[in-house]
Amino acid sequence: MEFRRLCSVEEALKNLIGRLKMVEKEVVSIYECYSRVLAEDVYAKIDVPPFDRAAMDGYALKAEDTFWASPNNPTTLKIVGKIEAGEIPDFEIKSGEAAEISTGAAIPKGANAVVMVENTRKFGDHVEVFQPLPPFKNISFAGEDVKAGDLILRKGEILQPQDAGILAACGIKEVNVFRRPKVAVISTGNELVEVGSKLEYGKIYCSNSAMLVNALSEFAEPLFLGIVPDDTRKIESVLEEALKFDVVIFTGGTSVGKKDVVSKVVENCAEIIFHGVAMKPGMPSGAAIFDGKPIFMLPGSPVAAYLAYKTFAEPSILAMMGVRLIARRGCRVKGVLRSPVASQIGIRSYVRVFWDGETIEPIRISGSSIISSMVRANGLLVVPENFEGYDAGEEVEIELIKDVTVVIK
Amino acid sequence: MEFRRLCSVEEALKNLIGRLKMVEKEVVSIYECYSRVLAEDVYAKIDVPPFDRAAMDGYALKAEDTFWASPNNPTTLKIVGKIEAGEIPDFEIKSGEAAEISTGAAIPKGANAVVMVENTRKFGDHVEVFQPLPPFKNISFAGEDVKAGDLILRKGEILQPQDAGILAACGIKEVNVFRRPKVAVISTGNELVEVGSKLEYGKIYCSNSAMLVNALSEFAEPLFLGIVPDDTRKIESVLEEALKFDVVIFTGGTSVGKKDVVSKVVENCAEIIFHGVAMKPGMPSGAAIFDGKPIFMLPGSPVAAYLAYKTFAEPSILAMMGVRLIARRGCRVKGVLRSPVASQIGIRSYVRVFWDGETIEPIRISGSSIISSMVRANGLLVVPENFEGYDAGEEVEIELIKDVTVVIK
Repeated sequence: MEFRRLCSVEEALKNLIGRLKMVEKEVVSIYECYSRVLAEDVYAKIDVPPFDRAAMDGYALKAEDTFWASPNNPTTLKIVGKIEAGEIPDFEIKSGEAAEISTGAAIPKGANAVVMVENTRKFGDHVEVFQPLPPFKNISFAGEDVKAGDLILRKGEILQPQDAGILAACGIKEVNVFRRPKVAVISTGNELVEVGSKLEYGKIYCSNSAMLVNALSEFAEPLFLGIVPDDTRKIESVLEEALKFDVVIFTGGTSVGKKDVVSKVVENCAEIIFHGVAMKPGMPSGAAIFDGKPIFMLPGSPVAAYLAYKTFAEPSILAMMGVRLIARRGCRVKGVLRSPVASQIGIRSYVRVFWDGETIEPIRISGSSIISSMVRANGLLVVPENFEGYDAGEEVEIELIKDVTVVIK
Repeated sequence: MEFRRLCSVEEALKNLIGRLKMVEKEVVSIYECYSRVLAEDVYAKIDVPPFDRAAMDGYALKAEDTFWASPNNPTTLKIVGKIEAGEIPDFEIKSGEAAEISTGAAIPKGANAVVMVENTRKFGDHVEVFQPLPPFKNISFAGEDVKAGDLILRKGEILQPQDAGILAACGIKEVNVFRRPKVAVISTGNELVEVGSKLEYGKIYCSNSAMLVNALSEFAEPLFLGIVPDDTRKIESVLEEALKFDVVIFTGGTSVGKKDVVSKVVENCAEIIFHGVAMKPGMPSGAAIFDGKPIFMLPGSPVAAYLAYKTFAEPSILAMMGVRLIARRGCRVKGVLRSPVASQIGIRSYVRVFWDGETIEPIRISGSSIISSMVRANGLLVVPENFEGYDAGEEVEIELIKDVTVVIK
């Protein structure tokens, strides 16, 4: 009645994961890619932004025209046009000329800088510029965010909202992700009754099915095949049906007692990878492999079933999509800053950072249009209003903005 | 062109949340309740387990018959029946009698203890018991896990798989949750082109819509109403349509420039709660209220849009379901143990614990069938194989097994 030998959790998981068959890829819209596992490296085909554009509302001009400008001695330029975001400038800026320009609008030919509207005064069809501008000032250059050919997302990323954003910015409307494994859930036990039915004396409601179906919904497509009594024929029959799925999860009947028919049926048709694990609760857990598909034998007790599910089944389902999950989006983690971070008193700053498990590298504090900064980052450091920032070497706490994964295949 | 006064993030959020209308309740199946916000306190109507049952495979008997039993001087009892899980025992145990019993089976009348099969030897229709048993040994009593009338889940919980499990165990197949707010997403800007279309010079692909639709899918029901040019009439018209939803999110046109028509249209029809926030990126963010519905004006730059969404829109959507989110499921947090935890060397133990933000109270280490232990707990402490446990006062790291929320209404 006892397991001959208990396998360690690590060993059990390692042996199982090495035997799993990957699921295929499928195409999804970037509007519905959240939490899906990316199945390919994705490269940009265009520059983002696709053209040189104004980073501020103001006037496009030749920087050289402003080199001697000052508040007391402004440069006066002739306004030769106006360019709104989305418009194509059909004129060229010559020396002594300027064009009104909106943030995001294409820089006209001949111009090489934009003066902010706050540093100018308009009168009629002329504008006074009160500030000298270096060339390229307030211009956001084509490819500044993403260059055509850049690797923007790696295979094995669990896609986040910001990833959908960068894909959209690059004009990519669909991506290849791994298909969510289809999982058959089967509760076994003569004592079990489906919720909603009448409960006769000696029976209990089946609780594992609702628990597992909800847990599975995060990364898989679960289907509850129903309650099956402790009967060899009936379990054989449901297993045959269940093997049309990618993953099979039994609860109950997994121990080594006389009534533990699940183990016997599974042993007869599939290769047992482990059965009996040095964990508590969850000791009677087992798993087998049939044609690369895992068949889990989870204990019938709900706590043990859930813990065994989280310990073995969830990592296996992710492994069938090629990844191991290291840390979850939304978690707060600590690390030592590799570079200083400066912030203005009175303003709450959101710094995009990269956490490598120990240290934290600030990626960007400004640049609200640089979406790649939020994709290269995996965390956010919030500098409160009453802080001027942090020094390199300080320990700070950040929030992860993506699920951190390792590719295992 | 500048905001007259910047509001702090805290102040902006507080003023907005105080003005939001709650969404209504709706009924969902416990098979589809994951991540939904519970809209009512839920009480058990039955005991769990519903009857006294065997906690082990063995023999049901009268404890008094075994008081002088020992390996050298076993008590011999007559086997008068056999009870499998799910069966109704139709006999009574008298002194000198025993019945074979399976884990989970109902204890027959007259019996008050179960001896584990390992401590017995069967011969014919008799069994030798080698161990004295105290009364009630190896019996799991009716209501041991949940008592009829117990509060099992509180309003404001974000439902987890284990919550579905306890609801099922109590025979509850549906619960009242808050309806997921319906959110209209609108991108504004003459420069924007929908992904999949041809990109003309001077235009960029719209990235905020895909980003926000994915982000919203976690707690809400988003619908992208499309790209609208910077045109007062067209923005008025889409806003009228959008106000049929519970929440409206605009991106772009939210600054105070001439082309920032979103702010102007929203100002004309709704009450501005804030506009201009002391945050970076995200400064031009604003929000208004119309009939208890929030209208968000998020910046057009994608990083700013996303940060403003996370800072204002997501907490507002949760507030419309009555909760504030404190910490996410899957996060690892540290705390000081309030009581010691013992574990067996060589076994990995999963201790259900309650984390209050600072300290950690162990709830249960054994009891794999006590599902309430996993619902009262909000975290899991894993004791590795090479540890004998932890002392009270030790700092340990746990994994949260539920989203920690505070009810705000």
